[in-house]
Amino acid sequence: MGGDYAPEEIVKGAVIAAKEYGVDIILVGPAERIEEELAKHEHSGVNIEIVHTDEYLVEGEHPAYALRQKRNASILLATKLVKEGKADAVLGAGPTGGVVASALQVLGTLEGIARPVAGGPFLGFAPKMVMMDLGGNVDCRPDQLLDFAIVGTVYAQKMLNIPNPTVALLSIGAEEGKGNEVVRESYPLFQKCGLNFIGNIEGYDIPSGRANVVICDGFVGNIVVKFCEALGRTICQWLEDRVKGKLPESDVREIVDDLLLATNMADSIGGGPLWAVNGIACVSHGRSKANEIVGTIKQAKLALELDLVGSLKAELAVARAKLGTPSI
Amino acid sequence: MGGDYAPEEIVKGAVIAAKEYGVDIILVGPAERIEEELAKHEHSGVNIEIVHTDEYLVEGEHPAYALRQKRNASILLATKLVKEGKADAVLGAGPTGGVVASALQVLGTLEGIARPVAGGPFLGFAPKMVMMDLGGNVDCRPDQLLDFAIVGTVYAQKMLNIPNPTVALLSIGAEEGKGNEVVRESYPLFQKCGLNFIGNIEGYDIPSGRANVVICDGFVGNIVVKFCEALGRTICQWLEDRVKGKLPESDVREIVDDLLLATNMADSIGGGPLWAVNGIACVSHGRSKANEIVGTIKQAKLALELDLVGSLKAELAVARAKLGTPSI
Repeated sequence: MGGDYAPEEIVKGAVIAAKEYGVDIILVGPAERIEEELAKHEHSGVNIEIVHTDEYLVEGEHPAYALRQKRNASILLATKLVKEGKADAVLGAGPTGGVVASALQVLGTLEGIARPVAGGPFLGFAPKMVMMDLGGNVDCRPDQLLDFAIVGTVYAQKMLNIPNPTVALLSIGAEEGKGNEVVRESYPLFQKCGLNFIGNIEGYDIPSGRANVVICDGFVGNIVVKFCEALGRTICQWLEDRVKGKLPESDVREIVDDLLLATNMADSIGGGPLWAVNGIACVSHGRSKANEIVGTIKQAKLALELDLVGSLKAELAVARAKLGTPSI
Repeated sequence: MGGDYAPEEIVKGAVIAAKEYGVDIILVGPAERIEEELAKHEHSGVNIEIVHTDEYLVEGEHPAYALRQKRNASILLATKLVKEGKADAVLGAGPTGGVVASALQVLGTLEGIARPVAGGPFLGFAPKMVMMDLGGNVDCRPDQLLDFAIVGTVYAQKMLNIPNPTVALLSIGAEEGKGNEVVRESYPLFQKCGLNFIGNIEGYDIPSGRANVVICDGFVGNIVVKFCEALGRTICQWLEDRVKGKLPESDVREIVDDLLLATNMADSIGGGPLWAVNGIACVSHGRSKANEIVGTIKQAKLALELDLVGSLKAELAVARAKLGTPSI
């Protein structure tokens, strides 16, 4: 209910996904509003249930505080359905903080991890590269960066079919000893964790996809990805002006759309699972329309089929055993 | 002597700048090699002196250590000429660390500032925006970020002719309280320093030039700028393939060159002064050819004419008085 186009686009996307992927859907929110939207779409033969609640979070509220006030918030009830085994995955399309806070509160994180990890491929020019974390974890310790690396490795293995993904720390120089304090302290830890660690990479190595898994704290990651998206949009606009009238309109459109897609991947993917949550909780951005909702439901289905949560638990245990840290 | 094309391109650039800007030049390095290069260029009527030394720093050495071993290193002798009043400015084209270490050792930094500050415009789409720091200062305290903001303000005022430049902290959310620890602690300090502080901006605000002065630590700044350069090059390559054969070759060349220029500004500017040094020390990148040397000499001349060092001292004193911090 909290997204920019809720509930109309969410309901529309849910109906499409139910048909396309054969998944059962539970829509949580004001029953009357949802039924009104459902009536607009042909949905015979698909299994769509409604769980009624009048409460939901909106953009701008402090998520944890709002959840304490609104005990029947739609995202909270939806997440509880996962906890109770009545649903396999939960999906929320904004506010992101509400999805994260509900996941934390109801499902919790995997042992030893404090907060969900956000990340994935973000640059079309490097489709085999994932970057983690992209926002939630701001000031990080070396052991947190290592957790991101394990998450990223499982992501690359399972979602991108890379058997032995290369892992790098994002820094400002290739040599060990280059970087800020947390990167310098993380380097030796990464060397002995059993991951395929190739050392530090610099900002200019990102587009080349030299590493499959690029690790940084959520402050750096968020700035890089948002800058990438904005620079992509800026170049698209500039380019359109430069080639307009010189190329057929359809060619201009195609080139600009492709460049926009390559630099603003989150818009096209829609969303994905919050990693390191003890269950499948997916977040789609607040601007999501039906198309992005369908994409995120597809991601949720994939996460379930690939047993991402189980794989990640196993990988975390292996890495901790290698480091001699007891699995807490 | 330490650059990729030294001394041939350095000498060539010096001759051009001497003619074009009417500046006197002192070339520091092996006299015989330099004379050999000088002989290749018509340089009658310009004042070019040679100070001989056989020692110079090379890429890969630890700069501070190398300077202790090579007491007659060309960059060290050249910087001493500034200290002794025999030169108005020193210029080195790599290794950057050697220029920085010499400047620190011989000229020192302005009172209260620990290391030189690097930065300036880096994105052609936002020519009225400077970002600081871009590399030298990695783990920063709030008072260091504030120093960068003062440096950036003087840069924007003097070099970009912006009377009252807007200043922003680069963060991951607009509201006070968003960001990592150092940004959160810097926010209140920025509010009362007397600068034209407009709050936090996010990664996607960078290309819009919403703030004239964007402040971050050198770790974040270096990653963003290097990513920008690499993404620019990647898009240029991709674009060339996409429009080749569809547009006249000259149009393709022009568009690609302009985009490369806009995303790789350091390549075209060549270099500039190290800010917060107590004197004018300019660094040009190691790949500099004659053209970049000429550009950097122009910057040095400008820095002198605008009295950047004096202005910066005055602005630092004003900001510190506003914060109640005694000028140390």
